[in-house]
Amino acid sequence: MTDVQATIGGVSGFKVAGVACGIKRSGKRDLALIASEGPCTAAGVFTTNRVKAAPVLFDQAQLAKNAAGIRAVVTNSGVANACTGAQGMADAEATAVSTAKVLGCAPQDVLVLSTGVIGVPLPMDTLKRGIAAAAAALQPDGWADVAQAIMTTDTRPKLAAIRVETASGMVTIAGVAKGSGMIAPNMATMLAVIVTDAVLDAPLLQESLRAANGVSFNQIVVDGDMSTNDTVLLLANGVSGVQVTAGESLAAFQDGLTAVCTALAKDIVKDGEGMTRFITLRVTGAPDADAARQVAMTIATSPLVKTAFYGGDANWGRILAAAGRAGVPLEADRLALWFAPGEDNPADGLQLVAGGAPTDYREEDAAAIMAEGAVSVRLDLGLGDAASTVWTCDLSHEYVTINGHYRT
Amino acid sequence: MTDVQATIGGVSGFKVAGVACGIKRSGKRDLALIASEGPCTAAGVFTTNRVKAAPVLFDQAQLAKNAAGIRAVVTNSGVANACTGAQGMADAEATAVSTAKVLGCAPQDVLVLSTGVIGVPLPMDTLKRGIAAAAAALQPDGWADVAQAIMTTDTRPKLAAIRVETASGMVTIAGVAKGSGMIAPNMATMLAVIVTDAVLDAPLLQESLRAANGVSFNQIVVDGDMSTNDTVLLLANGVSGVQVTAGESLAAFQDGLTAVCTALAKDIVKDGEGMTRFITLRVTGAPDADAARQVAMTIATSPLVKTAFYGGDANWGRILAAAGRAGVPLEADRLALWFAPGEDNPADGLQLVAGGAPTDYREEDAAAIMAEGAVSVRLDLGLGDAASTVWTCDLSHEYVTINGHYRT
Repeated sequence: MTDVQATIGGVSGFKVAGVACGIKRSGKRDLALIASEGPCTAAGVFTTNRVKAAPVLFDQAQLAKNAAGIRAVVTNSGVANACTGAQGMADAEATAVSTAKVLGCAPQDVLVLSTGVIGVPLPMDTLKRGIAAAAAALQPDGWADVAQAIMTTDTRPKLAAIRVETASGMVTIAGVAKGSGMIAPNMATMLAVIVTDAVLDAPLLQESLRAANGVSFNQIVVDGDMSTNDTVLLLANGVSGVQVTAGESLAAFQDGLTAVCTALAKDIVKDGEGMTRFITLRVTGAPDADAARQVAMTIATSPLVKTAFYGGDANWGRILAAAGRAGVPLEADRLALWFAPGEDNPADGLQLVAGGAPTDYREEDAAAIMAEGAVSVRLDLGLGDAASTVWTCDLSHEYVTINGHYRT
Repeated sequence: MTDVQATIGGVSGFKVAGVACGIKRSGKRDLALIASEGPCTAAGVFTTNRVKAAPVLFDQAQLAKNAAGIRAVVTNSGVANACTGAQGMADAEATAVSTAKVLGCAPQDVLVLSTGVIGVPLPMDTLKRGIAAAAAALQPDGWADVAQAIMTTDTRPKLAAIRVETASGMVTIAGVAKGSGMIAPNMATMLAVIVTDAVLDAPLLQESLRAANGVSFNQIVVDGDMSTNDTVLLLANGVSGVQVTAGESLAAFQDGLTAVCTALAKDIVKDGEGMTRFITLRVTGAPDADAARQVAMTIATSPLVKTAFYGGDANWGRILAAAGRAGVPLEADRLALWFAPGEDNPADGLQLVAGGAPTDYREEDAAAIMAEGAVSVRLDLGLGDAASTVWTCDLSHEYVTINGHYRT
């Protein structure tokens, strides 16, 4: 397996485009089209929010009917098509119909994604012009434009690609994502589309995506909110002819898919709204994996923890206090805590807490670590062998500025 | 029942003092003593955080042994005595011993509260000097000093008092509170001490406090964090000779206690760290009260909702999205939402959402409401008859500033 690249040269059999059609008032790219030359097997994971946007409901229905015949994904940014009632469902359907028409496929072959402001209807005439423009611009190496066109408050495009040597041959896996706000547990709130030229049947593809998502997009937190629109789609067009089936070839594919998803997920955190510090938070010594994740997520969403990281303050008491309210049984006098510099520091670094009370660490040593742009934190519960790693960021003035005036 | 007053003239049989003894580097008042001339029945509700500060554990043990013989509450601010291990428990005990000595009672008659920075040991010599100074300054009308002395990042003292005509005679109920940061569900994170001259046995007092707390301090949110130290204490010294027992006299007492607790709870939100807008959030039409509260609390802790209120942006989509992730079954197309100006607006005001989609309300009407210093929001789930009201505030730049540099 090669390293993950942050660019996408192309994936056999896919042509893509990202254009500006006028949905965003800024005039930036706002419509992306990903088209396969032949039918793809497809998989999706979706928001667990009870308030689901129309495209989420639409795609879930499409995949239930036609998970082996998907030809395209069309995405608009600027308007989320959420809380738009029956009109929203009709608009999602009309988007698929328009896309099918320009591509020469059937409406049931098209998946639809939207991201942006909630409660505003899609400007369908503008959108349809955008679909036509994107179809005319399709090309194998248009991925940077796609990544641009799905952005909302993201400050930079997010791409990842990898070449994977499976037991049956070489395949490519590549994807784009957008995030920035509303990044939360239970499916980090964002959009991602991942494509591959491998051959996988639809159930295996779905299982593979579910597993990769569980250790990547589901382990990131920006602000703890969860959107109505989060979706990760995975399309396999099989153009490489390389069959991936349960066993050795699947293991290699799974590793590659996880690497792409993890790279995109961490990119989303690194571009979190107003973020100034990246935090890798590992909870160990938990009685089970769910408890470990619950504690990690509670810490990662704590405004007091996040503002302390913003201020560069090693206020470890807030970490213990957040752990304590996670709803998981724990014993305060077994807690141990370490800080280390860097994004993924395997060493335990500086121990701040032992047996639930502070060690005699030097405050200047903690401050030196907190001054880094990335900090690794480990909290050990002293109760078992389970662990969970989440990636998160601080909470800054800029986050408040961005979100205080998003619509206005 | 009279109206709640924001000052405390005095409560028969209690003498109090608040002094500056040097725990706070600022030189502000940091030690409060509340002493009764005779033994009190006493009740307490405490943080459900699994990481409990030493004074919480200490007071729970004291109340279990001596709930009919409490003579005093001593409180320090500046240092929380949390995550301080065995030394912390010894220091809480020593604080009670010192207080008992100067008051001429037994150590088991004293309750102890601490608030401030976590993980730092109490400066016991300083604290003991403070106890002696406070004992020398005890007076019936020192409540304003007490309220000052328990503050941390609070910008103003919080006091409430009421005179209640029960079936058996007139009693006074009065209390002080501190809050500001770490205000969260499951016992809003704060300290409060309430006293009365009524006669109540300890089990009835505990039940009365539990009920009042459930509709007041437990219904406020500043940032969703929950501290290691939250405590509400209620002491009844019986000096009025007015017996409160189950039935008519209890109902009047309960109303008065709830009024005092609610006034203090709302005061805490109004002084929330960096707050600029007060929000009364009422969820109606829920299948049961727990579901209503869960939805209300999820909305009230959402950073996206809170920053939108800070920005004066009627971004109702974020309210629906937060409701959707509350973990409660709901039907998106039954949701209805109203905004009204003012802290407690009984009218439904402007309807923004009906059937899960926006009405044709005018954005300028919504903006006019959002420009108010207090906004009443009602979300109807359309599923049942249960309701819950929570009080919360916005999330501002100033919150981030305060919490980014609390220790440093």
